[in-house]
Amino acid sequence: NPELTESGMAVVRITRAGICGSDLMLLDGRVTIEPDFPIGHEYFGIVEQIGPDVRLIEVGDRVTGSFSVSCGHCVQCQRGQHARCLMLRFFGFGFAFGDLPGGQAEYIGVPEADLTLRKVPDDVSDDAALLVGDNAVTAVDVLHRGGFQPGQVVAVMGGGPTGLLTAQAALALGAGAVVVSDPNESRVRRAAELGATGVNVASDDPADAVLELSGYQGADLVVEVTNTVQGTADAVALARKGGVIAVTTVHADGEVTIPLGEMWLKDLTLVMHQVNVQARMDEVLALIASGRLEPEKAISHHLPLAQAAEGYAVMAAREAGKVVLVP
Amino acid sequence: NPELTESGMAVVRITRAGICGSDLMLLDGRVTIEPDFPIGHEYFGIVEQIGPDVRLIEVGDRVTGSFSVSCGHCVQCQRGQHARCLMLRFFGFGFAFGDLPGGQAEYIGVPEADLTLRKVPDDVSDDAALLVGDNAVTAVDVLHRGGFQPGQVVAVMGGGPTGLLTAQAALALGAGAVVVSDPNESRVRRAAELGATGVNVASDDPADAVLELSGYQGADLVVEVTNTVQGTADAVALARKGGVIAVTTVHADGEVTIPLGEMWLKDLTLVMHQVNVQARMDEVLALIASGRLEPEKAISHHLPLAQAAEGYAVMAAREAGKVVLVP
Amino acid sequence: NPELTESGMAVVRITRAGICGSDLMLLDGRVTIEPDFPIGHEYFGIVEQIGPDVRLIEVGDRVTGSFSVSCGHCVQCQRGQHARCLMLRFFGFGFAFGDLPGGQAEYIGVPEADLTLRKVPDDVSDDAALLVGDNAVTAVDVLHRGGFQPGQVVAVMGGGPTGLLTAQAALALGAGAVVVSDPNESRVRRAAELGATGVNVASDDPADAVLELSGYQGADLVVEVTNTVQGTADAVALARKGGVIAVTTVHADGEVTIPLGEMWLKDLTLVMHQVNVQARMDEVLALIASGRLEPEKAISHHLPLAQAAEGYAVMAAREAGKVVLVP
Amino acid sequence: NPELTESGMAVVRITRAGICGSDLMLLDGRVTIEPDFPIGHEYFGIVEQIGPDVRLIEVGDRVTGSFSVSCGHCVQCQRGQHARCLMLRFFGFGFAFGDLPGGQAEYIGVPEADLTLRKVPDDVSDDAALLVGDNAVTAVDVLHRGGFQPGQVVAVMGGGPTGLLTAQAALALGAGAVVVSDPNESRVRRAAELGATGVNVASDDPADAVLELSGYQGADLVVEVTNTVQGTADAVALARKGGVIAVTTVHADGEVTIPLGEMWLKDLTLVMHQVNVQARMDEVLALIASGRLEPEKAISHHLPLAQAAEGYAVMAAREAGKVVLVP
Repeated sequence: NPELTESGMAVVRITRAGICGSDLMLLDGRVTIEPDFPIGHEYFGIVEQIGPDVRLIEVGDRVTGSFSVSCGHCVQCQRGQHARCLMLRFFGFGFAFGDLPGGQAEYIGVPEADLTLRKVPDDVSDDAALLVGDNAVTAVDVLHRGGFQPGQVVAVMGGGPTGLLTAQAALALGAGAVVVSDPNESRVRRAAELGATGVNVASDDPADAVLELSGYQGADLVVEVTNTVQGTADAVALARKGGVIAVTTVHADGEVTIPLGEMWLKDLTLVMHQVNVQARMDEVLALIASGRLEPEKAISHHLPLAQAAEGYAVMAAREAGKVVLVP
Repeated sequence: NPELTESGMAVVRITRAGICGSDLMLLDGRVTIEPDFPIGHEYFGIVEQIGPDVRLIEVGDRVTGSFSVSCGHCVQCQRGQHARCLMLRFFGFGFAFGDLPGGQAEYIGVPEADLTLRKVPDDVSDDAALLVGDNAVTAVDVLHRGGFQPGQVVAVMGGGPTGLLTAQAALALGAGAVVVSDPNESRVRRAAELGATGVNVASDDPADAVLELSGYQGADLVVEVTNTVQGTADAVALARKGGVIAVTTVHADGEVTIPLGEMWLKDLTLVMHQVNVQARMDEVLALIASGRLEPEKAISHHLPLAQAAEGYAVMAAREAGKVVLVP
Repeated sequence: NPELTESGMAVVRITRAGICGSDLMLLDGRVTIEPDFPIGHEYFGIVEQIGPDVRLIEVGDRVTGSFSVSCGHCVQCQRGQHARCLMLRFFGFGFAFGDLPGGQAEYIGVPEADLTLRKVPDDVSDDAALLVGDNAVTAVDVLHRGGFQPGQVVAVMGGGPTGLLTAQAALALGAGAVVVSDPNESRVRRAAELGATGVNVASDDPADAVLELSGYQGADLVVEVTNTVQGTADAVALARKGGVIAVTTVHADGEVTIPLGEMWLKDLTLVMHQVNVQARMDEVLALIASGRLEPEKAISHHLPLAQAAEGYAVMAAREAGKVVLVP
Repeated sequence: NPELTESGMAVVRITRAGICGSDLMLLDGRVTIEPDFPIGHEYFGIVEQIGPDVRLIEVGDRVTGSFSVSCGHCVQCQRGQHARCLMLRFFGFGFAFGDLPGGQAEYIGVPEADLTLRKVPDDVSDDAALLVGDNAVTAVDVLHRGGFQPGQVVAVMGGGPTGLLTAQAALALGAGAVVVSDPNESRVRRAAELGATGVNVASDDPADAVLELSGYQGADLVVEVTNTVQGTADAVALARKGGVIAVTTVHADGEVTIPLGEMWLKDLTLVMHQVNVQARMDEVLALIASGRLEPEKAISHHLPLAQAAEGYAVMAAREAGKVVLVP
């Protein structure tokens, strides 16, 4: 079991853990990590222990939490910009990223528990709550960072869990139309079931659907979550004049060539999006509690924690929705 | 028939006209108007004629339009703030308010047609379109002016057409919870049917519902549309610390005593809201076309134009929803 | 000496303390306070001791600090809205306002030191730094809350220290013109020396100056800091259509009658302003360090701490600028 | 002389015309243009004639104007987004860009005169006014689009007229510090004279100055105006976490490789900036009239119109400030 090494820490017994697309970067070596370092940063469970400076979280609370830990003290945190925290730490990415053991485990130690955790309302299920602190909060936050307004046409590139949740959130917040594009047919179908227009990029150009739905103007907001560098460049063709491209694909490195002339002529804004989890979790929980957001719909598999390897294989094939591990 | 007295004008044959709560101010003498001046500022119909400088509207178009005409030239219009136009004119309020004959008639002459009118998409019904240029655009715009964010708790004071549309819009745009309060039981029931929590102020205090739904914090946003001056003062008790009160009741005059100490301690913002129609109509039409907003649900009566007097009597009793006149 | 009763606390040896207009509320009984409770909430000094959880402040630092202590943990703090903290405490206002002994003393105990205090850059003087945590931060923050934009015409009602600093800040941030009105001639003169247009309300109507400087439109932003309830109502006449009135006068109670009709016709926004100190102190220190803001210009008196009574008498006469006490 | 071919047009007798860096694109063939098409889009003069629908501009007015003509009717114009006008036209760039003869001439015909022109206040000089409609409005608008806040550290890449005006504007609007980098020593010196920190990129890395002035965080806002594609990629190293890069270099085509990983890790926003002239000219004129902005300081040469060729040669050497032609 983790120990309370900081006064603001809590220990959570995990009952649900998620596998995230970014975990695959540890598997395929794009990000290196110490051997046997516990990975995973999507977690839900019950608080077993709290440190002396924890004020808002109590033992026995059902909690979900952020994938990152902000300090709450630096100038960025004081302004409510937790993703820009000068001492940001991540769960499950090894020593270099903050040295916090991850949540695909039986227990997790959570620093700055008041900021990092949220008590889950009774009417929010374990599965829905599990997705709050990463995918769902990303979906809602990327719309805000992208200047989303009701009635807009939104193009989501990539139909994995975050892409589908972004489509769902855009519809819940009043989008005029949402197009989801992906090379995988099962993901395209899932998008359509949520009320979006699904486009299989293996056979069709998403620009066609976007143009038709936008009176031949292009998308007001393009959310790029293809997990490729090329996605950023491809997004330019989908955006309308004055539009916004928000890239929420996790990039540890890499570069891409962008069409500067076309982007300038279109008066575009490109947002490289890191999610402001702590400032947005309450909003996401309120949306779920009121029935407007159903993140559990992005889940395709539940597996025992012992079968994590199988879960990773499913994820790596990029055909699944969210894979949930149950310790 | 109206004549094309301005080069940017259009003539519209009216097939739907609405009676607005503000029209009652002409009846009861709160606003004086020349005898026989055609009143009404909610209209839908078919374009019969256009002036030489009209570019975006064509003869034969199904159109709805703004209750007010902005000039499109002054510094406020150039910044997209049409409600603050230095030469704003209103339909159906007589000489002093711009001398534009109103829409409870067979025809209406519409100046600055490109700015004032909108072609209605095929999938938007006549009834829905009729409500765009006043009540529906007010409902959406007041949320924006009030800094509405998804997940928030919204209290709407007053369950007339604009109040109900505001509740509907807040839910469509992701509100966590909406409370509508009114002294009339049929309006309270309508609110509940839309998905809001209805409170009859004759028997209950809306603060009870607001507090319960907001974790005992108060409403993030209070929209006041009670058609009274007292409503503004009463709104203070419903708002949370840091909340916003947006008054969209039409006030030609009047004053009210407000609790300055309580408002300051609560860090409140009070918005006296005039709707920015021209900048918001496209968004509202997109919301209707996508099925997210159904303003026609606020309509309770359709009457022939010849029975307008009956319609006004129904409106004055404050029990109806929207009354629509059909020429 | 104060003791470190909280782990995030610091003890500061005070070398400058200010008397604030709001301190007069304790003297004249508008706010009641326990006998012998140390008052004062404007302080500057040297850190003598820190608790185990203080990370950003060190012993020996020259520091200035906020007049209020936010918790840094609640939902409002996490969003960067410290004035709306659910557990906000104030220095020097007695038990009911948070039970924090004030700074007109030799030492002060400062909870949540990382959030409440700021290390002062070498090129910022003691006098300038003293004013950061209340008057100067109020001046800058009220412009932001009031939606200030460069080139605007700003009317400041009240020429006390906060009023003069607001005028100075507006000019430093690119105001087109600033009018300061006050019944006291020495304050009117000070305003003129800062580059504003001073108006003595005993003889002149500030509306005349405002209208002339704004092309007969009215002020874009009216900042009310007259320390009266009537000021809020009087502000309406100065504001342009679409303008903002921001009230930064401290109101513990009181009410006022406002002209609702005129306010609605003008599409006004009324902001009851509580300053978001923690989110704004770094910006104010940067403005001072760069020479753009000189809050020390608002100081008119330096007195030994033992002569505090004399300082209060000077303040009560409302003729002075800021009175500084030196322990 | 131009003829009044549109009802909203004015004819202006030109007394000052500017050469803009973007005019060089016509000379070096990056943009092709019909032979003998009059070029130039910076102009100041006296109104000689107006069309029947011009309301705000009168014969005899001293006027300056936008380099582009927005229609005032489309959805973008109605929202105050004139750079995104669906029918935008440019002066002096030939048939493909709107077929409007340019201003390096004795007369210019100005469509949509109420939107395109501004009457110049008496206390604004001809030289200052000349720069309003392109360089000065770009300087102020790029700060707004870049989310500029007072106290921030701004890095301006490129010390030509627009770069120097951006530095000047940032200081006038309360920047904490401004760094201007350029390979030309005379431009570096000019920047220093305006109060910025000048860095010659031939010998020094602007990152050193930026880091020192920002407490080793990086610039809050980087304005790229180097007239190269590489500038966009180089800007990344100067920006702080959460910072903004605003590219106001004119790009008709071209592409560049950007470091996506670094940009994502920094949570950056990249704005490809087209200036919203019509919505910003009044603000810029107010800043000049109040003495806060002195765009004429960017002028290095006055030449007779007949010596335009010499002016272009000076500009092409990229050593001059603004070159003004006097018909």
